[in-house]
Amino acid sequence: MRNDGRQPNGLRSVTITPNVNKHAEGSVMIEFGDTKVICTASVEERVPPFMKGQGKGWVTAEYAMLPRATHSRNHREAAKGKLTGRTMEIQRLIGRALRSVVDLQALGERTITLDCDVIQADGGTRTTSITGAFVALAIAVNKLSATANFSKFPIRDFLASVSVGVIGERALLDLNYEEDSKAKVDMNVVMTGQGRFVEVQGTGEEATFSREELNELLALAEGGINELFAKQREVLGPIADRIRG
Amino acid sequence: MRNDGRQPNGLRSVTITPNVNKHAEGSVMIEFGDTKVICTASVEERVPPFMKGQGKGWVTAEYAMLPRATHSRNHREAAKGKLTGRTMEIQRLIGRALRSVVDLQALGERTITLDCDVIQADGGTRTTSITGAFVALAIAVNKLSATANFSKFPIRDFLASVSVGVIGERALLDLNYEEDSKAKVDMNVVMTGQGRFVEVQGTGEEATFSREELNELLALAEGGINELFAKQREVLGPIADRIRG
Amino acid sequence: MRNDGRQPNGLRSVTITPNVNKHAEGSVMIEFGDTKVICTASVEERVPPFMKGQGKGWVTAEYAMLPRATHSRNHREAAKGKLTGRTMEIQRLIGRALRSVVDLQALGERTITLDCDVIQADGGTRTTSITGAFVALAIAVNKLSATANFSKFPIRDFLASVSVGVIGERALLDLNYEEDSKAKVDMNVVMTGQGRFVEVQGTGEEATFSREELNELLALAEGGINELFAKQREVLGPIADRIRG
Amino acid sequence: MRNDGRQPNGLRSVTITPNVNKHAEGSVMIEFGDTKVICTASVEERVPPFMKGQGKGWVTAEYAMLPRATHSRNHREAAKGKLTGRTMEIQRLIGRALRSVVDLQALGERTITLDCDVIQADGGTRTTSITGAFVALAIAVNKLSATANFSKFPIRDFLASVSVGVIGERALLDLNYEEDSKAKVDMNVVMTGQGRFVEVQGTGEEATFSREELNELLALAEGGINELFAKQREVLGPIADRIRG
Amino acid sequence: MRNDGRQPNGLRSVTITPNVNKHAEGSVMIEFGDTKVICTASVEERVPPFMKGQGKGWVTAEYAMLPRATHSRNHREAAKGKLTGRTMEIQRLIGRALRSVVDLQALGERTITLDCDVIQADGGTRTTSITGAFVALAIAVNKLSATANFSKFPIRDFLASVSVGVIGERALLDLNYEEDSKAKVDMNVVMTGQGRFVEVQGTGEEATFSREELNELLALAEGGINELFAKQREVLGPIADRIRG
Amino acid sequence: MRNDGRQPNGLRSVTITPNVNKHAEGSVMIEFGDTKVICTASVEERVPPFMKGQGKGWVTAEYAMLPRATHSRNHREAAKGKLTGRTMEIQRLIGRALRSVVDLQALGERTITLDCDVIQADGGTRTTSITGAFVALAIAVNKLSATANFSKFPIRDFLASVSVGVIGERALLDLNYEEDSKAKVDMNVVMTGQGRFVEVQGTGEEATFSREELNELLALAEGGINELFAKQREVLGPIADRIRG
Repeated sequence: MRNDGRQPNGLRSVTITPNVNKHAEGSVMIEFGDTKVICTASVEERVPPFMKGQGKGWVTAEYAMLPRATHSRNHREAAKGKLTGRTMEIQRLIGRALRSVVDLQALGERTITLDCDVIQADGGTRTTSITGAFVALAIAVNKLSATANFSKFPIRDFLASVSVGVIGERALLDLNYEEDSKAKVDMNVVMTGQGRFVEVQGTGEEATFSREELNELLALAEGGINELFAKQREVLGPIADRIRG
Repeated sequence: MRNDGRQPNGLRSVTITPNVNKHAEGSVMIEFGDTKVICTASVEERVPPFMKGQGKGWVTAEYAMLPRATHSRNHREAAKGKLTGRTMEIQRLIGRALRSVVDLQALGERTITLDCDVIQADGGTRTTSITGAFVALAIAVNKLSATANFSKFPIRDFLASVSVGVIGERALLDLNYEEDSKAKVDMNVVMTGQGRFVEVQGTGEEATFSREELNELLALAEGGINELFAKQREVLGPIADRIRG
Repeated sequence: MRNDGRQPNGLRSVTITPNVNKHAEGSVMIEFGDTKVICTASVEERVPPFMKGQGKGWVTAEYAMLPRATHSRNHREAAKGKLTGRTMEIQRLIGRALRSVVDLQALGERTITLDCDVIQADGGTRTTSITGAFVALAIAVNKLSATANFSKFPIRDFLASVSVGVIGERALLDLNYEEDSKAKVDMNVVMTGQGRFVEVQGTGEEATFSREELNELLALAEGGINELFAKQREVLGPIADRIRG
Repeated sequence: MRNDGRQPNGLRSVTITPNVNKHAEGSVMIEFGDTKVICTASVEERVPPFMKGQGKGWVTAEYAMLPRATHSRNHREAAKGKLTGRTMEIQRLIGRALRSVVDLQALGERTITLDCDVIQADGGTRTTSITGAFVALAIAVNKLSATANFSKFPIRDFLASVSVGVIGERALLDLNYEEDSKAKVDMNVVMTGQGRFVEVQGTGEEATFSREELNELLALAEGGINELFAKQREVLGPIADRIRG
Repeated sequence: MRNDGRQPNGLRSVTITPNVNKHAEGSVMIEFGDTKVICTASVEERVPPFMKGQGKGWVTAEYAMLPRATHSRNHREAAKGKLTGRTMEIQRLIGRALRSVVDLQALGERTITLDCDVIQADGGTRTTSITGAFVALAIAVNKLSATANFSKFPIRDFLASVSVGVIGERALLDLNYEEDSKAKVDMNVVMTGQGRFVEVQGTGEEATFSREELNELLALAEGGINELFAKQREVLGPIADRIRG
Repeated sequence: MRNDGRQPNGLRSVTITPNVNKHAEGSVMIEFGDTKVICTASVEERVPPFMKGQGKGWVTAEYAMLPRATHSRNHREAAKGKLTGRTMEIQRLIGRALRSVVDLQALGERTITLDCDVIQADGGTRTTSITGAFVALAIAVNKLSATANFSKFPIRDFLASVSVGVIGERALLDLNYEEDSKAKVDMNVVMTGQGRFVEVQGTGEEATFSREELNELLALAEGGINELFAKQREVLGPIADRIRG
């Protein structure tokens, strides 16, 4: 039994509330247990300099935590004047993951920025962010499709992510903060609706893992991600049917 | 009639939801119409270097907006690597205002940091932040009082704030964003439960105002602030009675 | 009697020396007692990006103190790599105040930057800066008028500023540093030659003030500002007559 | 056949030259084909603040590329005033990987910093850095053991790393720059001498990969890493025998 | 004849006004023609970390130009967030030059910081700064000697500096801005009262110079510097006699 | 006898290895004893903004030390977020020196950036950098001449640099680190193949020097630089003959 009563392969309670921001083209509040992230999708009719003139769009992400999202207060990165390595790593991951299911050609010369702001953290903020940002992105692209005259819907497939890890000898799905801090191996997995991997990031901090453990963790992640796809479909309703894949 | 149907002296719908963050010692989500701010109070058992050894506490504030809190997306200050002048000005104001009703001696050598993070903006974010931060502060101080053995409750009085402004020839209470962008005079007023001023900041951007207009605006603000005190009392319940003043 | 022998409603000795800089389009050294500020006005034939193509001009200000302007040496902001909140707040105030009396349309697509550098500080540096910067601005605009073919003189009215405050129970005009550090209420007032307010910033640091005190302070400020207008007129000579209002 | 004539499972020519720096406690120049990295290990007799008083040591890494290490010149991060996300991600990876085989307790309150400076880049700079940094670390720890009176040799196992990727339909070992830029899947694998994983980072940029591809890539990486262990042993000579595992 | 009527070996009109700042331990306004620099000396009863515990003092300098010290306005370094290379080079030069005539042992564990702020620039700001800073330093050390119980006066010798340069075929003393911008060789010389060199910095920007030119420039500098020593003695009065050398 | 057995007028062993970088248009590894610097020349077909439209080229330099180039490890400037004054001073010197022998008109609208990265430091890194950068520059310009259709070879003369200093009473050529740290006078001299000076920077840190010492140091430098020209000629081979002068 886990510290919150879950089975090893159990997700925390997942809630995705769409349209929580009146300004953004797409938005959700996503909750994995006590982890709460606001994801907004902002559309701009231009691309960054390195993409200009290619007829393609761009999808990027930014990630932050409110100072008191965590047990003790963190200094604001804005006050420190720079992003931590952790933040940069996470926002690069979110952007890269989302781009894997976007047809940038079909999107045309536009940028969609996904802001993932962690309101409260209890483990798994990066995987929660990816899962929520995908829904905000789909809402924004759907809204855009009313005016943008896309040749085809620019989202090719579903995308979701979950963390898995090893505590003691057990592989567990969707670690909360307490579990995460005890895990000897931590893995973040991002998959598409077609069951293909986008990112597999397995890490042993002061520890290592075997091929068997890796396989067990991947299987666990796959099960959890399939549940997340069902949640995303439910929230997206008819938009879900426009997503190819 | 105003663009949202209010009377000139009407506040927007105000909601204060306490305890929205499981980690913080005190927290609220405060809403003034579509303006939504999360205020958290974080207690540390030490004071900044310039306050050391005086036996007194410190109260300070930080303020930020999520990038898509506004109509079009703003760059993150953390990514830009520095705070804007506007942010600095606002967080200095919030901290100074809160300190005016705190008995720093009674608080003892502790720092309470109020983080005001604007989730969605529709005008009046600084006055909303002050009004919400006061409640988060009171919750945190009350919680602290269970263990801190205060000689007296360190909050001396209530504190709330509202904006007022002149549009055309009319003085209006609690401007929303559309009104604010048309106002020729903009004033932020902070008052205590005893009806005394803490801050009066009246500004004419490319405009000026007379003594009569100033008086009319102050009267309007006073009326609105009294309504806010009632909201704060309601949310604080028995904690309200511990506040002196 | 005050620490320097003044009456409660007495200004310090005020001197405004024009044309102290051979490069700048307008310049003054302004002294309020021991507070000394060099104000220079620099004209550029372009506007910042956010103002482009509107046919209007821009007026902005920057403020700084020499490291040893104060009793003990301060670190240079350039060495620290960023402006303090106090500096940003002051330079935003100076720019906003000056713009209230400038007809940006009449000025045309030009930027005038007022640099206010405090050579020696003894309280009231921001109000001294506004009062001196106005004169430097008027000199620069007058010089510009020889070649710029203005439809009308782009300065609409006089502008001056003074601080007032409450020490003990007494309201005092034009606080010096020693008084300022004892004041429980501090107010900066900016007014036009027509007797209208541009900025009223009243602040109680760990204190509050009543409506009556506010009124008394405003009356005191108005008296002082009228004396400052006379000083400005004297220095400006014939330029004073070109200022509308 | 690959662009440089290698088999799919062939490493580039790997050279590890020890003791290339007369000041550092440990150093190597490591070459994977045209990728050249200088790795130095610097020992300090103190730990960072967050590790103080635990009786344990710390191992950390920094990574950089000379501006002209790459085909076209890059701006210096020092001149830009901040590290890129890529640099932070890589140096976090190197440090984390090395710590997985270090017995920080046995090391005692010391910090060893591994500097990995890429002199010339042709793909695989992060995996080359890890493989070289391990050797520099072992040399430094061995040198330290002469005076430090370790209870046991603080390096528990060998550590090496290689990149693998998918180009077209083929899985390839140790991608050079030209291959890397065509790869649809890119994976960095770090393993211990015992054949356990420390890091598995598989990424599809605008692409995805199946479980079968993942398995094939891991097998390829394992083969290459075993060859790297042989190279490391050869360079380390008698030091290799002190490494546990 | 030079553009301002001087002989090749003529200094501009030099004025040194002592005690221009009421807060600083020592201060002067120094003018070389239209170049005007305020130099203040600030004493602190501690040394920087790298000097601690050696029983010796430290002398350092900071240099800046007001934005409109020059013909067209420069951006503030504080606003840009960093010092230019030119500023750093100059302030390192000033500090190093001053230390050459200070007996740091006799000074004891104190830091004296010389701030050189250029109010108006017309060439030669660094040499003017050194010449003025020396006087401000001597005033401060003399003031300190009343309480510090020095074993001997900590200033060993006089120090002054001047620029020389080659325009066309002529060597000229004390270049003004117009001359400086035409010079093919520019040299800054710092000397002691004993006639010894402290710094000789000769530079050809896109040009070179012969040994004969070098000798001619040094002779010219020596003559000018001797005149500066006379000016310094005059201003320092009885303090001059306390300076050894 | 010096600490490494050299005569007062003896250079350390100097080695210049050309073409050490496969990407750069020109490159060398230069060694002065244990001081090792990689110099690369990077050509871009554009000039910086301040040079645009003049039909002239630009030559600039950047300098850095690897963290463990020195006896104890230095913090990376990239991690600190800014360049030190020392670095800025050195890279300004290198660029200025190189420009003195380049015909920028003949070069045309191109920028050549010389990166001087110190791999290992043992004194004289700035003079070693200049001497090596000149060779890298010549190689790059020669390569460019194959396609650039220069009216004349854009390098006008040879350029080399060496340090000299006074230890005790003796003037010494080419100081190593141990000597440099004991020197009371330190001088860096840059000369052209024609025997003319480009830079003479003589500095006494807490010391001074006479005209005779200056002359002796210059003579010593001239002798060493002539030896360096021979080394440069040898490495450059036929390219040497294209250099005018």
